[in-house]
Amino acid sequence: MKEFNLIDHFFKTKSGQRKDVIIGIGDDAAVTHIPQGQALVTTTDTLLSGVHFLPNASPHAIAQKAVAVNLSDLAAMGAEPAWISLSLSTPEVDEDWLTEFSRGLQDQIEYYSIQLIGGDTVQGPLAITITAQGFVPYDQAITRSGAKPGDLVYVTGTLGDAGLGLAIAKNEIEQATKESLTQINHDFLLKRLHYPTPRLLTGTQLRRIANACIDLSDGLISDIQHILNMSSCGATLNLENLPISPALANSVDQETAIKYALSAGDDYELLFTVSEEQKGNLETTLASANIQVTCIGYLNGNVGNLELKLKEQPYQADIKGYQHF
Amino acid sequence: MKEFNLIDHFFKTKSGQRKDVIIGIGDDAAVTHIPQGQALVTTTDTLLSGVHFLPNASPHAIAQKAVAVNLSDLAAMGAEPAWISLSLSTPEVDEDWLTEFSRGLQDQIEYYSIQLIGGDTVQGPLAITITAQGFVPYDQAITRSGAKPGDLVYVTGTLGDAGLGLAIAKNEIEQATKESLTQINHDFLLKRLHYPTPRLLTGTQLRRIANACIDLSDGLISDIQHILNMSSCGATLNLENLPISPALANSVDQETAIKYALSAGDDYELLFTVSEEQKGNLETTLASANIQVTCIGYLNGNVGNLELKLKEQPYQADIKGYQHF
Repeated sequence: MKEFNLIDHFFKTKSGQRKDVIIGIGDDAAVTHIPQGQALVTTTDTLLSGVHFLPNASPHAIAQKAVAVNLSDLAAMGAEPAWISLSLSTPEVDEDWLTEFSRGLQDQIEYYSIQLIGGDTVQGPLAITITAQGFVPYDQAITRSGAKPGDLVYVTGTLGDAGLGLAIAKNEIEQATKESLTQINHDFLLKRLHYPTPRLLTGTQLRRIANACIDLSDGLISDIQHILNMSSCGATLNLENLPISPALANSVDQETAIKYALSAGDDYELLFTVSEEQKGNLETTLASANIQVTCIGYLNGNVGNLELKLKEQPYQADIKGYQHF
Repeated sequence: MKEFNLIDHFFKTKSGQRKDVIIGIGDDAAVTHIPQGQALVTTTDTLLSGVHFLPNASPHAIAQKAVAVNLSDLAAMGAEPAWISLSLSTPEVDEDWLTEFSRGLQDQIEYYSIQLIGGDTVQGPLAITITAQGFVPYDQAITRSGAKPGDLVYVTGTLGDAGLGLAIAKNEIEQATKESLTQINHDFLLKRLHYPTPRLLTGTQLRRIANACIDLSDGLISDIQHILNMSSCGATLNLENLPISPALANSVDQETAIKYALSAGDDYELLFTVSEEQKGNLETTLASANIQVTCIGYLNGNVGNLELKLKEQPYQADIKGYQHF
């Protein structure tokens, strides 16, 4: 099967139908329209087999995650997603695999009302690169550099689930965890690993409320540093406030749960900072959204310094975020 | 070296400075402004080591080509380039390699006045995915589907040079070619392979003149089929009119030169169609551009049929374009 037919067969018919797409898949490039008053937001992320997903992961989950991690970056800017482009490197034309992969892609396309506008396929090691494009009203993008000392630090959802999920998937959990892991928790944790949820609605709601925002892909400790560096702040985190899911809390001890919550990647929750004055506004805005947000600390002027406390005591954590190299 | 530092060190400072980039490298996503009256044009292409370039190719050339093949897609739409995003998969942090690669990238960025707005780096087999974004005035994008029977078929530049260049680089040329290959021709042909030139100026000049356009990446015979299929046309090509460079003509016999011109990929010239009425307009417009364009045939109503003629006689060619799988 030639590349042209491959894209046609597996992706073109399932690419979505947005009115702002003038020319979609099948030409040299896609042509799209940006609504007036909106800025374009663009992000690219690559998922590589054996690095970002396990080689035996389901193609449906791989496609879903490849889209989700990119949409999560748009969410962190306060943007609304519109279009994605796919570059798929695959060792062979495995029709079953491609069918499942394209189904995963299509599910995301339908769920988020986005459109696949371009594709490239190459024969090589399994890797998926997606570029996602979206909009945000002019001057309302939420950056990593707008945080200020005194800001409260919030996160969405719960942290560390995907970390334990990965340990489960790699069969690297301890005997005690195996014994305390119920089927429901097992399934929940794996779902959190394989099917992360980009916090798009929260992202758009944080426009004009949050001073800074980032998505948690490499682990809280690693990712918050980007905000501290780019905003010239320090932070104190109160670890007893970390949002830990019942599934994680019931499967490992508190120290391990904190370790996962602080250092494991793949959560794709948002971390954002809000001034004291905007706190009420935040609570009102999010009340209708049915998404958990938790205040886990505050920023200060100790530039680049990250202080961890557990019940007012300094917490020594020998943990790092995900290292890419 | 961590990913963040790697991008910072090798790419951020060399990313260009466009006024329409509000937020560039270093945040969750880039934020850019589209000029009023312009549509967004987006394309993605991946170059994989051993498939799209030889493993021992110079990192400077790899970077240049990775940008050029994407800009060539924008050129084929009549678009003007603005921003690129890079996903780099590399097996290790080789500072010399990365320095040369980033220099190649920067040269393109400066030459085309574009900006690198986002990056992702992963540890894996050497592969470069670039997403290029640009503009075209509303309703002026040149598609593959606008060609009409009777249109004249043109190509820019010369064809087949990169094909022989690849054979030289892979040491797959015959003894007779080796003997007739001068150093100047050798260098020219390798330059055509490693440093393709996206025909951006020609692309923008073809707006409102060409009915259809495509860039030649997989070989003329393969790529023209996309126009024939999408425009429901057939074509007759007069092979004696194929633009063959002196370097190619002086290195191989006529039959081999035609074979390279028809089937070898990597030329990154534009193939476009123009109605008889627009022919004068085309010639006037391109007169100032100092870019060779050659009429190589015409379209007809024999849908999907490609007829090859050499001096009025049917030409049997057992040749195919590049197969991706």
